[in-house]
This record gives sequence, C-alpha cells and structure tokens, in this order.
Amino acid sequence: MRNEIVTLSDRRERHLRLRAVQVRVSETLRYAQGDIEESYFQRRKILEEQLQSLQAKLKDVTNLHHASALLGWDQQTYMPPGGAEARAEQLATLDKLAHELFTTDEIGQLLTDLAQAGFDYDSNEASLLRVARRDYDLARKLPPELVAEMSRTFSIGQQIWAKARADQDFAQFRDTLAKIVDLNIQVAEAYGYEDNIYDALLDQFEPGMKTADVTSVFNELKASLVPLVQAIVARIDAVSDTPLKQEFDEKLQWDFGLLPLHAIGFDMERGRQDKSTHPFTTNFSINDVRVTTRLARDTFPSSLFSTLHEGGHALYEQNGDSALEGSMLAGGTSLGVHESQSRLWENVLGRSRPFWQYYYPGLQEFFPKQLERVSLDEFYRAINRVELSFIRVEADEVTYNMHIFLRFELEQELLTGRLNVADLPAAWNAKMEAYLGLTPPNDALGVLQDIHWSGGMMGYFPTYTLGNVLSLQFYSQALKELPDLPEQFARGEFGALLGWFREHIHRHGRKYTANELIRRVTGDDGIKAGPYLAYINQKFSEIYSL
Amino acid sequence: MRNEIVTLSDRRERHLRLRAVQVRVSETLRYAQGDIEESYFQRRKILEEQLQSLQAKLKDVTNLHHASALLGWDQQTYMPPGGAEARAEQLATLDKLAHELFTTDEIGQLLTDLAQAGFDYDSNEASLLRVARRDYDLARKLPPELVAEMSRTFSIGQQIWAKARADQDFAQFRDTLAKIVDLNIQVAEAYGYEDNIYDALLDQFEPGMKTADVTSVFNELKASLVPLVQAIVARIDAVSDTPLKQEFDEKLQWDFGLLPLHAIGFDMERGRQDKSTHPFTTNFSINDVRVTTRLARDTFPSSLFSTLHEGGHALYEQNGDSALEGSMLAGGTSLGVHESQSRLWENVLGRSRPFWQYYYPGLQEFFPKQLERVSLDEFYRAINRVELSFIRVEADEVTYNMHIFLRFELEQELLTGRLNVADLPAAWNAKMEAYLGLTPPNDALGVLQDIHWSGGMMGYFPTYTLGNVLSLQFYSQALKELPDLPEQFARGEFGALLGWFREHIHRHGRKYTANELIRRVTGDDGIKAGPYLAYINQKFSEIYSL
Repeated sequence: MRNEIVTLSDRRERHLRLRAVQVRVSETLRYAQGDIEESYFQRRKILEEQLQSLQAKLKDVTNLHHASALLGWDQQTYMPPGGAEARAEQLATLDKLAHELFTTDEIGQLLTDLAQAGFDYDSNEASLLRVARRDYDLARKLPPELVAEMSRTFSIGQQIWAKARADQDFAQFRDTLAKIVDLNIQVAEAYGYEDNIYDALLDQFEPGMKTADVTSVFNELKASLVPLVQAIVARIDAVSDTPLKQEFDEKLQWDFGLLPLHAIGFDMERGRQDKSTHPFTTNFSINDVRVTTRLARDTFPSSLFSTLHEGGHALYEQNGDSALEGSMLAGGTSLGVHESQSRLWENVLGRSRPFWQYYYPGLQEFFPKQLERVSLDEFYRAINRVELSFIRVEADEVTYNMHIFLRFELEQELLTGRLNVADLPAAWNAKMEAYLGLTPPNDALGVLQDIHWSGGMMGYFPTYTLGNVLSLQFYSQALKELPDLPEQFARGEFGALLGWFREHIHRHGRKYTANELIRRVTGDDGIKAGPYLAYINQKFSEIYSL
Repeated sequence: MRNEIVTLSDRRERHLRLRAVQVRVSETLRYAQGDIEESYFQRRKILEEQLQSLQAKLKDVTNLHHASALLGWDQQTYMPPGGAEARAEQLATLDKLAHELFTTDEIGQLLTDLAQAGFDYDSNEASLLRVARRDYDLARKLPPELVAEMSRTFSIGQQIWAKARADQDFAQFRDTLAKIVDLNIQVAEAYGYEDNIYDALLDQFEPGMKTADVTSVFNELKASLVPLVQAIVARIDAVSDTPLKQEFDEKLQWDFGLLPLHAIGFDMERGRQDKSTHPFTTNFSINDVRVTTRLARDTFPSSLFSTLHEGGHALYEQNGDSALEGSMLAGGTSLGVHESQSRLWENVLGRSRPFWQYYYPGLQEFFPKQLERVSLDEFYRAINRVELSFIRVEADEVTYNMHIFLRFELEQELLTGRLNVADLPAAWNAKMEAYLGLTPPNDALGVLQDIHWSGGMMGYFPTYTLGNVLSLQFYSQALKELPDLPEQFARGEFGALLGWFREHIHRHGRKYTANELIRRVTGDDGIKAGPYLAYINQKFSEIYSL
C-alpha cells in the first residue's frame, strides 16, 4: 500500500486540439440554406483564431511541464549523485518559465473572450475553457512574493524535516512547520473560500469537493471501521504472514511483476517500468507513461503491489482520448480519482481471491522453495493480514484509513488555530491511541513520518481515502453492468474491466470533476461510503471469520 | 572509429559565476590609501549588477539547453516508441524559448555595456563576454524566417534522406539537398565572411579557424597519407583481423569496457554509461556527464573503442573548472578540440601497444575461448588493420582522413556553385576512386551514407580530421613534458595524462579558441600536421614493415 505523492503538476495546464470540423460542416449547410448571416462566420472565424492562439500558448506551457516531469523522472531513476545541484536549478527555471507563460494577461483575455463562444458543455472546447480558467485563476491568485516565499520555505523545509526525522526530534522541525501552516493559511486566503478554510486547500487536489462532504463520508467510514478493527484485533492471530517473511530473488520479483502489468493492459510501447527508491508514475504524453517499482529481497510482495498500484495510475493516463493529447485536458481529473484507479488494481483486483486463483500457481513456479508448501488460501490471507502499525504507507486496507482520519483532523485544527504546532506531537499520539490503540515510541514513527507537510502540502491526505472509497463506488457500478468480472479475473482476463473504466472514466481526462464523473457513471449525488464499506466488511469478515 | 555528431548546443550560451571578491579586496585597500575615487566604486557597483543580471538571464538559457539535452538523451536511451511525437514538440518548445530568451535586446545591451568594463583578457568575466557576444551575434544574425525555414527543411530532410538511403536512391534526396545547400549559402551570407563563403560555416563549429588553414593542413596530410595508403595496400595481407571475427558475449563486453573507462578517470559519481543505437556523449552539468555505447556480439572490439572515444569527450566535460559550472564558458571550445580528446583516448591511447600490454591479459581472461591462442602482437595488429572501405565511420586511422578530404572538397564546390547537386554522386564516386581506389556500388555506400547534410550541417566534417591532427599536436607536447607516459600506460596508469590535459585544456572550458589553446599549450602558431603525420607514419610503418 505505497502511497507516494502523485504530483499533478504535469497533468495541469494543457492545451486543446481544435476539432471544429463537424460544426463547420453543419453551419456551412445552414448558411447555404440562408439560415446564418455572413457576419456569423466572421465572428466564428475570430473565435477559432482565438482558440488556436490559446491552444498554441498553452502548448508551450504543457511542453515545459512535460520537460520538467522528465527531469524529475531522471532524478529518481538514473541521475548520478553529482547531477543533483544543477538539476534543481534546471527544474526551477522550467517551472518559473511555465508559470510566467501561463499567467499572462493575454491568456486571461483569451479565456474571457472565448467564454462567450457558447460551446456545448461536453465539448472539448468548453471543457478546456473551464479547466484552463480554473487553473489560471489559481495560478494568478497567489502573489509572486508568496510563491517565492513558499518555494524557499518548502525547499528548505524538506531538508529540515529529513534531518529531524533522522534524529527523531520534532523540535527541529517545529518552527518550520509553524511557518508552513501560516503559508497555507495565506494560500487559502488568497484562493478564497466560503466558510471553511480547508475547502480552499482541498480544492487544489480535489476540485469541487467540499470539506463537509469529506467529513460526512469519513464519519460514516469511522462508524463502521472502528468496530471492525476492534473485532479483527480480537482475532489478530487468525491470520499469519509467515509465508511472506522469506527472501525472494529481486530479478525474479521483477520478472514476475511484469506478467500482471502486461495483463492488466499497460502498454509497453507507450511506457516503461524502471526502479526507484520511491515508486511513482509520471508521463510526458498519453503515449509515454512511466512507472517505477522498488525491489528488496525481504519485502515481497511489496514490489508486486507497487507495480499494480502504479500500473493503475498509468492505465488512467494511457487511456485518455487521443484528442486530448498534449492539451490541458489530458490526465487524471483529481488526486482522489487517480488514487481510485491505483487502489482498484492494487487492492480490489490485486489482493482479491480470483486474481490469485489465476496467478498463484505461476508464482509458486517462480518461487518453489518459498511457496510450494503454502496454499493459495494461506497466501491470500497473508497478503490481506491486518496489523496495527505506526506507519501509514505500510498499513493494510482496513487500518490505512485511520491514518488519514487522524491527519485530516489535525490539519483542520492547525489551520483554524485550535491546535498549536508545539502541541502537535502530543495531539498526534493521542489520536493514534484513540484510533489504533498505539503510542508511537518516537516522532519518526509518529508525526514526522510523512514528507507532505514539509513540502507545503496540506489538504492532500484526504484524497488517499477518497481514492479508496471511489474505487469501490466505481467498481460496484462496473460489477452491476459486468457481473462476471470476478470469473474473468480468475481466468486472467482484465480487458473488460479496463474497457469499462476507459469508457466511463479514463477517456474523459480532466473534462469532468470527480463529482461530475460520479454522477455520470453511478447516478449518485456525490461520493458515497456504502460500496467501500460493504466491500471491506464482507472481505475481512470472511478472512477473520467474524 | 565512431564519429557521431557531438551537438554543441548544450555547451553554448552559458552564464558566469561572479568571482569579483579578490578584485574588491585589492580595490578596498587602494581606496583606503586614497588611490581610488568614490565614483569609481559606484561605477564598479553598476557593472557588478549588470554582470549579475546578465548571469541570471544566461542561466535560464543554459538551463533550457540542459533540459533539452536530457530530453535528447532520454530519446536515444530509454524513451518508449510512443513518446517520439510528443518529444519532438517538447524539444521544439525548449529550443524556441531558449532562442527567444537569449536574443533579447536587453542581453545585447548588457554585453555592449559590460564590454567597456576592462576586465583582464584571461579573467572569467572577459571570457564570458567574448564567448557570449560571439554566440549572441550568431544567434541574432539569422532572420527568424530563415531559422523557421531551416528547422522545417532539416526536419523533413532527415526523413527524406533516411528513406533515400534505405532505397539506395540519391534522386529522392536531390531536391532537398539542393535546398539545404541554398539555405547554407543564406546562412553564410547572414553571418558574413571576408572572401571565402566556407569560412562562415566552418566558424560555427570551429570558431576562429579559417578555410585556408584547414586547406593547408589537409594538403600536407594528403601529400603524406596518399603514398602511405598506397604502400600499405601493397602489403594489405600483412595484417589479419581474423582474431576479431568471432562472437563476444555482450554482457562481458560491457563489463570489460567499464574497466578502462574507470581507469582513464571517468567519474561515475558525476556521470554514467548507457546503451544506445548510436554512441554519444552529452551533459547537463560539469557534474552530470553521460556517455553511451553500442554492443553487438559480432562487432567486438567496436564497443570498447566507442567507450574510450565517448569517454574522451566526457573527460573534457567533467574536468572543466568548477567556477565555470552552469555558465556559457563550461564545455568544450570547439568540435575539433573536442574530437582531439575523443581520438586521443580512443586511438593514441586505446589502439597503442602499451595500453594493451596492460589490458590484454585481462581481456584474454574475459574471453579465453576467443583469445587464448591470439598473441598480444596479433591482437594489436588486428585492431590497427588498414582496410580500403566505403563507409567513413568504419574506417581505420589512416584511411579515415581520406573520407574527410573528399567531403571538405565537395562541400566547397557545392557552396561556391562549381558543382551542381545533380552531379554530386558522380563527383563523390570519382573522388572515392582517386583517394581510395574504390567505386561505391550504390549511393547508400556512397553519397548518402552520412546524416549530416540532411540535418543541414555543412562545414562540420573537417572538424573530425582537425581532431585527429590536434590530438597529436597536444599529445606530442605532453610527451615532451612527461616522457614516460607510455611506460605509465603499460602499468595501467593514466592519471598523469589526464592531469596534463586537465591543466592545459579541460579546465579552460570555452575561454580560449582552438588557436589560442594551441598557442598557449604548444607555442605553435596554429594547427600543425607534423606531429600527427610523424605518429601515423611511424605507427603504420612498423605495423606493415614498410
């Protein structure tokens, strides 16, 4: 359950390919019939030129973001140590130029003029104008001095945090974090919000989603998950992970992982997998989407789930409509929806019984010494074992969300001033005790474990649990339409599932917000905890014989 | 003898790190003594601010070039096929923005103002102003419409050439090449020249070098090399390459190649080696310099010489003065001097007897089946075997230069209108007959073999032979100062050679032109064929018992 930061920067600020041919044909017919005035065509021509102009300007911005993304990919995969200093300066230049080129008055004027054009809501044209306007306003609302101070603070913040974590000493990070909280408050004020300051920050990562919606869903989850965890804890020894506590050759792990990565539909002609310390997904085009995985002899099957997790992100990117290629509309619409795809393939599929019915015999052939005496059932239970633990990124499907509730609550308390940064470690530990009955023995296993805050990101954490919830909200709909999906998985067939997601989610790129997608796909009026809770309760009641 | 195109774009347009502290200290002392007026300090302060401003602007340009270089590296090493289209557009945006940012009136004004500052000629400040002014004038002299037409023509030109070569049909490429010749004439006119149009084109790759100098050196080479080739041809069977006509495991080739790459001083903490179809060297910093090599079972020891060749380029880049890092002064000063470094390590060292006295026993251990019955002497002669052949990049040390003479002469005839493009294949074949006694059976083995012209590059080819000549002009000087170098090589010690080149060539980056370096290092008044001819005649007379 690796939850690396999926930066959306390389999915933002993209441009549209003009596709007005059909409209022109129809208009030409109507003109021939005398239904349209000559002047209409002149106005139409001006709009098309403005759209092309906007498109060209946004394309440069997109290209800079994609270049920046490649520099980031290289930094984490192949760059020799000596390259670090120059690389940071190169990235700073690319990001600065992209910001400058995007936030010109000219682009603002084009967006305003074109908003009058009356494109159909679902058209690529109207969608581009909506998305570009949203990104543009966000980018323009931050004063340059604030951006500069954020950049400095967050850059130094990560170094200070890394040292504090290594020293297990929150005090070293305290003042920096206080400043980061203050900067986030300034950001929220600059963006603006109605009544909840957290809305402004959440909106950066999950456009259109409100804190109240998240709170409502989280409360429903808590009401069900807290007693579930307690029931599981009472039977904690019912499941053993002994089968996984062995050594597995790294090369074989890599080779085995490629089998499901291919099978779920990752296109190696339009992407690749490499190794990195922290697994991530990035892309420079719909047709160049790259994932990484992490391998160690003693952490199997972590690499496999990492491959499926990043593969899920990558399928979302690879299956966008080709008409969106190179435009601001390409890519995932929000962090939550992106995470719903990674969790779907990692957990809902990858930790399911049907998946392993198909793959386990092959896995045993790869690792006969380790697994020939481990039954499919033992293996399935081992990879789904629930464990109370300190570290979010190592948590299982059930307890993972507790780590998010804690962070979501603490962030709101910090931002509204109800909690002082100096009191944060104690508040953290109290919540760990309340949710999981654990007290971290030191800050490295507690409040210092995540990189997010040190990099300035607040309002980001909830998207992980939103991803869990959305994965089931979407999947349960898929299952209604394609009830034999589990039987297909057991035969190693994943094409129908991918096809369903391509049709309903992937191809739209950023055209619709998460809430719009939910409505279109499921008919639900917003995010709903029901399907996820039904899934978790059913799955873990069975595993733990509750 | 792989002679890939070393694009200098990523070595151009760089910025300076201000190092005025020493000057300030000395001035402060003189001010305290009443030797300097107050107003002097004010003027000095303005100059420093202007220098910092220039530095910051040029740094963005450098960073864009380095980002572009990384995109190019990725394109040739790891990019999946699907990424090609988007990559071309990303590179176009980066190059366009770099050109725009570099050619502003503001930078021109800063260069003009700062030219009055009276920096010492050898200072980094004065050197930066010289080099930046030269690049700036070149970049500004080309009208934007000409740049755009070149970009279009050369991009399509490469595709048309590739197909024509595959079809062995010059006629397909003829009209495009005629246009390319015409565009090069326009470029030369835009740059300006005194009496020889070729000077303007040569100057792009070999600043300050004149066609007349090249002609003079080439004539001296020809007078000696033509009879040498004839003498060798008369004894062509005296050397056999049978020992190399075997299969060598690719992984073992890779592993063996790393030994000398490390030993000559390539720093793997500040660089790396990867595989690519065409070997090349690129860099994004003095501290991130990357080489590639090409491996095939049946072409050993091609990969090894490729590694040494690119390693030579890389040593030049890695050993620049750290004060030049990130500035326009970092990198090699010209293609000829760059090539002198690659040829030095590939040929003068890598195909020498002392080098193999040290490495051959190890090579036999890597490949016992292939080499245990091949003596050191047989191996040494095999890797230096002279062969009359059609293809420049496969040519040996002696005949290689013939391929360059031919191109140098044909380019001048085309540019001055003495030769029509339609008559080029016949002219090519006639010269091949004259220089090497061979007639290409088709255009793919003749006039269509090189990519350079299709990419618009004319005036580039001579730098390969200039590199050969310079490698010996420099090395013979090193040998005067360090007469026991060959004995060191025979012990596997290459540090003294690298140290000598670092001190005399590498650390200066682009501060001095090739002619200035020659004068500083050897005292010679320009490029001289003597040392190279002495080396070639001595080496091959011995091998062929002439």
